Amino acid sequence: MDKLYEQTLLYDFYGELLTDHQKQIYEEVVMNDYSLSEVAREYDISRQGVHDLIRRIDKSLEEYEEKLHLVRRFLEIKNKIEKIHSLTDSPEITRLTEEILEDL
Amino acid sequence: MDKLYEQTLLYDFYGELLTDHQKQIYEEVVMNDYSLSEVAREYDISRQGVHDLIRRIDKSLEEYEEKLHLVRRFLEIKNKIEKIHSLTDSPEITRLTEEILEDL
Repeated sequence: MDKLYEQTLLYDFYGELLTDHQKQIYEEVVMNDYSLSEVAREYDISRQGVHDLIRRIDKSLEEYEEKLHLVRRFLEIKNKIEKIHSLTDSPEITRLTEEILEDL
Repeated sequence: MDKLYEQTLLYDFYGELLTDHQKQIYEEVVMNDYSLSEVAREYDISRQGVHDLIRRIDKSLEEYEEKLHLVRRFLEIKNKIEKIHSLTDSPEITRLTEEILEDL
């Protein structure tokens, strides 16, 4: 799995368990692709400080996944829903699978 | 939703975020239906202590759900999968929906 895609999925599932400060920094660097130096200046911390913070957040998101496996469960379900979507001729089942894929 | 069903779902999703001690007590009282007095004797704490512990664990499981909404998301998906299951004639889609319902 692509690193950014994995980070985005983990953040989508477990981000709300982070502090507001952690969320802000993580979004700036990982989601919005600001440089470490830019974020360091904005928050008045060192570039190394931002770097370490991101690494610690990645680790803590990964630990949530090791405990709860929710991303893995969702991906397995998504895969099966996509199969159903490609197999069905029924407009109603098509609509339901599309709704589920939006929820996921 | 039935209280025990709700507790079981929340515990199933977020239980791994509790400490081993919390998990043991919660399972004894909520899942295995031992009395507060029995569990109090077993762990050498007061009956009131067990009662308070269970209340705190319920609260912390509810807080995880308020933040992550994973139980709600899973229930919505389950509901739609059951609709697909009842609508389809295809053996392959039936099999896939049954697999998903087992995963959920």
